[in-house]
Amino acid sequence: MSQRIKYNIKKLYEGVLSGSRTMLAKAITLIESQLPDDKINAEKLLNKLIPKSGNSIRIGITGSPGVGKSTFIDTFGEFLCGLKYKVAVLAIDPTSRLSGGSILGDKTRMEKLTRNKNAFIRPSPSGEASGGIAHKTREAIILCEAAGFDIILVETIGVGQNEIAVRSIVDIFILLIAPGAGDELQGIKRGSMEISDFIIVNKADGSTLKLASLTGQSYANAIQFMLPATKGWKTKVHLVSSLNNTGIKELWDSINEFLTITKNSGIFHERRQEQLIDWMNNIIIEELKNHLNSNDEVRKLKLKIEGAVFNRKISPIAGAEEILEAFYNSLKQ
Amino acid sequence: MSQRIKYNIKKLYEGVLSGSRTMLAKAITLIESQLPDDKINAEKLLNKLIPKSGNSIRIGITGSPGVGKSTFIDTFGEFLCGLKYKVAVLAIDPTSRLSGGSILGDKTRMEKLTRNKNAFIRPSPSGEASGGIAHKTREAIILCEAAGFDIILVETIGVGQNEIAVRSIVDIFILLIAPGAGDELQGIKRGSMEISDFIIVNKADGSTLKLASLTGQSYANAIQFMLPATKGWKTKVHLVSSLNNTGIKELWDSINEFLTITKNSGIFHERRQEQLIDWMNNIIIEELKNHLNSNDEVRKLKLKIEGAVFNRKISPIAGAEEILEAFYNSLKQ
Repeated sequence: MSQRIKYNIKKLYEGVLSGSRTMLAKAITLIESQLPDDKINAEKLLNKLIPKSGNSIRIGITGSPGVGKSTFIDTFGEFLCGLKYKVAVLAIDPTSRLSGGSILGDKTRMEKLTRNKNAFIRPSPSGEASGGIAHKTREAIILCEAAGFDIILVETIGVGQNEIAVRSIVDIFILLIAPGAGDELQGIKRGSMEISDFIIVNKADGSTLKLASLTGQSYANAIQFMLPATKGWKTKVHLVSSLNNTGIKELWDSINEFLTITKNSGIFHERRQEQLIDWMNNIIIEELKNHLNSNDEVRKLKLKIEGAVFNRKISPIAGAEEILEAFYNSLKQ
Repeated sequence: MSQRIKYNIKKLYEGVLSGSRTMLAKAITLIESQLPDDKINAEKLLNKLIPKSGNSIRIGITGSPGVGKSTFIDTFGEFLCGLKYKVAVLAIDPTSRLSGGSILGDKTRMEKLTRNKNAFIRPSPSGEASGGIAHKTREAIILCEAAGFDIILVETIGVGQNEIAVRSIVDIFILLIAPGAGDELQGIKRGSMEISDFIIVNKADGSTLKLASLTGQSYANAIQFMLPATKGWKTKVHLVSSLNNTGIKELWDSINEFLTITKNSGIFHERRQEQLIDWMNNIIIEELKNHLNSNDEVRKLKLKIEGAVFNRKISPIAGAEEILEAFYNSLKQ
């Protein structure tokens, strides 16, 4: 899968710190590699760069295909670059492996941002597990921050545990929706609304302006039933036209209000700290699982036992015991 | 914490199978025990009883304190016993350890059911982790089923991951709410609605009848925005008066409709199978975590490293690595 690229960690480290987009891209390729040697190098690089990270605003953006995420990010990113921010876009793409499709497709879907020298766009195939997805993106965020990017936009689509994984690695979470009413609203994945700090109705322009306004009202009603995704912040609904560049400034003002409130209350900092511990605990669990599955015999036994449990031949307790025993024995060898 | 009780596994096994409520209670005490000897006995007992389990309808019931869960379960349970079903009530009580309080308090809160010889009521303190909560309750369900109970009601309140843990061990999930409007609806924990097959507005009687009806309508509207908790079943809202015993039969009819649909579609069976595998994987993860924390040195190191990660002294990756290394070394000894 991965090509055998020779990495020079010192050069990568310096390159990323200097803000080189080429070196940043190469560094992300390294951390995404599955090769054992690369993993060791990736850890080395990350451990060196983590102290240089943490100074960005991390924004997660989700939405079903077709709501105009690329156009929105293009417009929003360009707006932020106009304010002299350096903007990185990381797309977690759960479809790329399955269908060969991609959220971002070719980069031309973000025409303006692609040409902006203060922007960096990186679509990444997702790992196999949702834990894996967040794991790699967390690391990519660290690299982007070390490279001096001020705002990181993490794009995802609402598949499985993907959104929740992204929520757990960002400061702010935005749900993007297209104008639509009644039945269409039901298509929104359960849970997406509950974890969002902002709900943005895109395409609030032309013939869909009126519908966008109605949709915004419906969502404003619906969020009455929910606790806020972030303590002390009432989820806000915004109407935006990515095409006509309207509503973008208001959204940014609103995001700044969010930042002021959560930084003053300490929620912003607390969440970051919790995310670090959470990250470590995830790594521990993931590594234990990997280790368990990395042993051929244990893995084969596990598959066999899963089948037996599924068909009620043995109990889940006895099955777990047998698998763990095999795992512990394999460690002693 | 636990008293040293001497357990006779053969006697417990036969006692549970005979349907003795005394022996069932004792068996549940055994599986809840933290003593190493008891754990071994509990596993033995469970492994013997699992083949005798699985023939009940497992219903999870959640709701905030004050909505009348006890009264509802009392009335609903009594109704089911009237249909010649044997009914077990398991209450997962996350508050009991913290505050000394209890969902059920003394059993007199379920006056009718307590005196019914076809009913069994068991409040259980929750384990420390949410995984632990579900783990023990899963086992208690097995015991109740082996003892011949036809319907298991698992009661919980919406604290933390508790509800989701319960959803993952039952066939049907019910959210109980009290009449209330506007602001009060916002108090419902995010996620409770999304995982429910039935939303029941209790206290649809007397002076709160009108309000209950309005509340039911609000929830009926709100669930329009959600995907169903169970494939092929549209979440239903019911009005019930536990006090006057109205709406209970309609609810039971509706539950039977749910059972017919999900059993015909295979969803019922599929969910049960997935829950078994899920259970096994949970046990594996929990046991690995326990094992990691059971070693004094590893546990002390972990606490120290968490502090360092929290204060950004070391990276989560380096921290995880150090903890895992210590863990693997401890296993080799």
